[in-house]
Order: sequence, then structure tokens, then C-alpha cells
Amino acid sequence: MSSIRKFEKPLGMRDTFPKIFEKQEAVRSKGREFLQLRGYEFLKTPTLEYYDTVGKASAIVESSLFKLVDTQGNTLVLRPDMTTPIARVASSKLLKEKIPLRLAYFENVFRAQEHEGGRPAEFSQMGIEIIGDSSVYADAEVILTAIDFLKQLGIEDFKITIGNAGILDAILRKNVETDEQFEELHQLLVQKNLVGFEEAVARYRLPRSEEETLLAFLEEATELKSIRQISKYLSEKQALLYMEQLASILEIADVAKYIAFDFTLASHMNYYTGMLFEVYAAGSGFSLGNGGRYDGLLSDFGKDVGAIGFGMRIDYLVEVMPKQEIEKDDVLVLFVSTQLKEALETAETLRAQGKRTTLQAIEGLDDLATFEEQFGDVVRIGQGGTSL
Amino acid sequence: MSSIRKFEKPLGMRDTFPKIFEKQEAVRSKGREFLQLRGYEFLKTPTLEYYDTVGKASAIVESSLFKLVDTQGNTLVLRPDMTTPIARVASSKLLKEKIPLRLAYFENVFRAQEHEGGRPAEFSQMGIEIIGDSSVYADAEVILTAIDFLKQLGIEDFKITIGNAGILDAILRKNVETDEQFEELHQLLVQKNLVGFEEAVARYRLPRSEEETLLAFLEEATELKSIRQISKYLSEKQALLYMEQLASILEIADVAKYIAFDFTLASHMNYYTGMLFEVYAAGSGFSLGNGGRYDGLLSDFGKDVGAIGFGMRIDYLVEVMPKQEIEKDDVLVLFVSTQLKEALETAETLRAQGKRTTLQAIEGLDDLATFEEQFGDVVRIGQGGTSL
Repeated sequence: MSSIRKFEKPLGMRDTFPKIFEKQEAVRSKGREFLQLRGYEFLKTPTLEYYDTVGKASAIVESSLFKLVDTQGNTLVLRPDMTTPIARVASSKLLKEKIPLRLAYFENVFRAQEHEGGRPAEFSQMGIEIIGDSSVYADAEVILTAIDFLKQLGIEDFKITIGNAGILDAILRKNVETDEQFEELHQLLVQKNLVGFEEAVARYRLPRSEEETLLAFLEEATELKSIRQISKYLSEKQALLYMEQLASILEIADVAKYIAFDFTLASHMNYYTGMLFEVYAAGSGFSLGNGGRYDGLLSDFGKDVGAIGFGMRIDYLVEVMPKQEIEKDDVLVLFVSTQLKEALETAETLRAQGKRTTLQAIEGLDDLATFEEQFGDVVRIGQGGTSL
Repeated sequence: MSSIRKFEKPLGMRDTFPKIFEKQEAVRSKGREFLQLRGYEFLKTPTLEYYDTVGKASAIVESSLFKLVDTQGNTLVLRPDMTTPIARVASSKLLKEKIPLRLAYFENVFRAQEHEGGRPAEFSQMGIEIIGDSSVYADAEVILTAIDFLKQLGIEDFKITIGNAGILDAILRKNVETDEQFEELHQLLVQKNLVGFEEAVARYRLPRSEEETLLAFLEEATELKSIRQISKYLSEKQALLYMEQLASILEIADVAKYIAFDFTLASHMNYYTGMLFEVYAAGSGFSLGNGGRYDGLLSDFGKDVGAIGFGMRIDYLVEVMPKQEIEKDDVLVLFVSTQLKEALETAETLRAQGKRTTLQAIEGLDDLATFEEQFGDVVRIGQGGTSL
């Protein structure tokens, strides 16, 4: 054996111990019930996909992909997101059956890490996709579903920041002179580095009107009124009308208190084409999840239909969910071997009453006292038991 | 893009569509409830493990491992089984807290395939491990749990074939002359190729008594009485007494009708040291699952404790489970945009009644008639709706 010790796991890989597992499971089962009740259908896709299909389309930077080569010499990736595989499945089969599709998933995705102590390289996401509905009502449904999903989990103190990838792109492109400038400014917004944005704009020595427009945009884009303010920078008004309609729907649905608009919102997921959003909650430094419209991705797979969805990080959700008391009412049925029949019957009776019951032969224990401590109640069966 | 088409998936990789997903989910939720009630704790381990730790110890042939190299130059594997990762977790942390441990999992494992149309390269398993109990009652608990698990899923027509890896090894080794002969005979038994076994024995030209012993063993090992018959071939009687005790426990637990003993039972999982078993059900050509005692594996990870468990294949379980009628009582609330508020309220009311309710704006539909067909009931809201 090399320098790797027996207990070690690869960089960014984690074990999920029973207590955390049950918390994640609570999210999974509540989320499943919630989404099923709204007509979403769950599906699974494989862990491995071709690099040439899902890997390239997934919009995750190359260095974060886990890649391997199969026996035929094809490059495979461990799926870095779920949206792209679902776009593949929908295009190849499901869209023939029903349009729009409402799909849901609870799956693990993979992002290779470069440093020890970094973020997890494998994590679970729960999410939805509405595929084949280009109306603003699909955008509204996804946001309302995200809001109700969080409330269902007992999370109340959260904010959804909404932007629009198309509007942001149009404003940036209209006011810079090169693709490199566009890429840099976009990247700075992904990093939420507004100071860096201002510095970069100054460095470009753009014509005065363009420079002023970019800086004014930065100033005005973070308030709801910016939906109207912003219109002066745009030649194409369609996307803006769309966002106004969305805002009015969210008003009608009485969720305005959860919403903030910010047109500087940018995503590293470059398949978003229209509305996009991020979810933040008190108690977590990270975004709990994000979503948006990705109308271009489906046409990559040969279907020209609109699509929109969101994905939430299970590990972050578990952190901000209200803590629940764990009851310690497990029962231990401890038996000596001569009394096996009675022990089996006792355990069966307790389990029929809904009690979590562990059946354990005394012959199998080295340290009886420590083992017993784990249980709320101990039932002893047989002579050996009563003499303890 | 190369010769791979957009829709393709890597060799042996499958999508799980909603209907199959829900069937697998039924196994998962019934199984989880069942195992939790018996005191088993669920956990997760990462998809990727070091080849040097879990990969080598997992007893899966090299050519079936999916391998990749990480940024540090270490070889990783996609876990080919769950028993080895759980042995790693138990040794590194959990065994400090409780002995014996009763652990459970529902996870996907990976076995690379060499031909198109072959078996799946990724499949889900549900299983348990009892770690730190070397008594025969742990063996009995695992078998009884497997039986009750199958019955819980509505599967009644099944058989559990029980053998013993230690006894089989001892008999083979005592009567052959080389390691190669041992390996060949063992491999033939893994393949259940009894004719091949007899031919190989004849080919070895062993002393008459050894040859007769091997052939007699083949004859007698497949009946319950063979537990006693077999004793004449063994110098070490311990394992045999153990199996007699196990048979008597299973008799007391009233499950004899599900049990068959077969001491020729051999596994390609070479970490089994004692009792091992396979599960067969009417309606499936494959073994639904298997289990056994692997006392050596934990000492590989530095802990000298006994361990035993089983794992069941979810895809095969779904095939043999009784079919359940799927109710088509989903409701569609179809609305025109002016009536959004009323539509939201109607959907909320229906969902509060437990009805799966899809909310859909007419504006988002291209083909209303086809979409409506999917639902058991349609509620139309708004003028546009009533005029349909």
C-alpha cells in the first residue's frame, strides 16, 4: 500500500454518518411529497455521461470535471449538474409523451476540488425542471415552487434574488468594445466583485457615455425600480416587459417580501438565457440554490423548446433548517440463546407497535454496559438477562 | 462532436424514467421503514474511493472497476460495492461509538461492462451490515432480516441458499494438490458449473480417495442432511457446529421453508470467510441478492471484529414484486393569465386535500388536448377555460 492510509478518502469526498443522513433524508422525503403534490415526476439519470454530450454542455469549468476513459476509448464525466442530463433525457424520449414536462430529481453531482479543506467534491441536489413552456407563468411557477419548498422545510428567513441573463448580456455587450472586456466584466459579476467591475471599466477607457452607462447600471440594478430604470440602456424591450410581468405575478401571488431584483446577477452556468435567480438564507454563507431559464440548452439536444428550473443544495438546506429534537426511544431486546423464540416474539410485538427495536444476543456482546446506553429502554429476556 | 450522438449514454448506463423510479422508490421507502424499525442506521459513503483502499479490498475483478486519476496522481475507483466502504467507515469512526453496529444503505454501485446489451454498469443496492458481532445470532439475524425484507415487499416465492466459504475452502484445499487446482474448482463452483467441476477433478488424476471425496461432496452438499454428511471430510469441526446451530435457530424462527443448504455455494466476492447465502425468487433469472460473513475484511482496516451483511439488487426486486395498479387521479388546474390569483387558490385547496395538482397557464401550451389527456380531472379557470 502506498502513502495513502487505509481510512483516507479522495479529496473533497465525505462520509455521511447516520445523524446527518437522517436530516438529509428529511429534506428528501418532505421535498418529494411536496413536489409530487405539485405534479412533478421524479427520475434518475446515470452517474457517468459522455464528455462529448453532457460534459461539454454542462457549463462547468473543465478543471472541475472528473473525467475517465472507458474501454472503447471514449471520455466520460461524472455528471457535474443535473440540468444537462435531464435536457438529454427529455429530448431523447420524454418530450414525445407530454409537453410541458414537469420533472424533479434528488441526485448527487460532482465537482473536482483542487485543495484539501475545500468544498465537497460530491453533493446532493434537489431540483425541478419545466421543459416545453416558454410563458412567464413557468418562470413564476419555478420561483413560487422554490419559495414554498423552503417554507415546507421550515425555512422562513430567506431571500430570492432575481436577475436576467439576457438583459445583463445585452447591457454589457452594448457598452464594451471587445469580447475580452465582456468576459471579464461578466466574470467579475459572477464573483460579485463590484469594486473590481468599476476598476475594470475605468481601465478600458471606454467612451464617456458607455462608461457612465455601465457605472449607472451597477448603481441602479439592485433595486426593484431598476426594472424600469434599466430600460433606457436597452434597445430590445421584450425581455424587460417579461420581467415586469413576472414581478406583477409575484406581487399577485403575495410573495414580494421574499423577492429582490438585481440585474447584475450573473451565473457561472452559461446556459442561462433569461430570468435567473439565487436563493440566500440567514445562517448560511453560501447560496442555497439557484435556477433560471435555459432555452438554448434543449436546442443543443435537437429540441427547440423553452425550459426553466432550479436546484437546491441539500447540505446547505440541512444547515439552515430548524433543528429537530431527536427522540431516544429505541428499544433493545437483549436475550440469552435459550430464549430465542420468546425474544423474536417480543421484538415482533414491539415493532408492530411502531417501536424501533434492536434484537441482540448477549453472546454477541463484548461490552454490554456501553451497548445498552444507546437505548431508551432495555427488555431482558432469559435467565442471563434477569441476573444482569 | 465525435461519432457519439447527442442522446447516447456510456456503455451499461441507463436512465430511470418516472414509472420505474417510483417502483424503485417503493422498495426504498418500504425497506427503509422496515430496517429502521429493526434498529439499523442508514449512512452514505462517497461515490469515489481510493483504489489502494477500497478498490483493492472490494474483491471485484479489475476489469470491472471504473478507474480515474485525480489531480494529485492518485488512482480512484467508482465504488464497486458498499460492504468495503462501510468497513472503512466503521473502522475509522463508528466502531468507537457502538459495538455491534447495525448499519444500512441504499446506494448505487458500479461495474464496468465490456459489451453493449450487457448488464447495467450502475445499479442500486439496499443492504445491511452487522459489525462487531461474531456470534451465530448475527448470522441468523441477517438471514431472518433478508426473509422479512422480501416478505415486506410482497415477495413470497423465494429461496435462500446457504453455504459456508470456510468449509468449502477447507474441503477443496484438503483434496487438491495445487493452488491452481483449488482456484479452478472454486471458480467452476462460482459459475455453478458442476459438470466442469467433475471434468476438472478427473483431469487432475488425484489419488483415488481425494477424487472420490470431491465427487461425493458434490453429490451430498446440496441437501440439508449434508450438514452432517459433510463432517467426515473435515478435520476442523468448529465451522460445522456453527452451521448446525444456525440451522436450528432458523428452525426455531420457523423459516425452514425458505431455506436450502448447499455447501458448494461459492462467491466471486472473496472476502467471505464463513456462512454465505444467495437469494433466488420465482420470476427472476438472477440472484436478487447475497450476503455472508466477512470477518477478515475489518482486520484489513485495522479492526479485528466479525462482520456480516447482505445486499439486494433494487432492479431485480422491482421485477419480482407484485405489480401495483397506478391510480390516474392527478388534477390539472388550467388557467388564463387574468385569473391567476383564483388558480393559485384552487391549486392550494386541492393540494391541501392531498390531490396531486398541476397548475398550468394556457399561454404555456402548444397542444392543449394532448396535455389534458394525462390527467384524471381538469379544472378550468377563466373565460378562456370555459370556452374550450
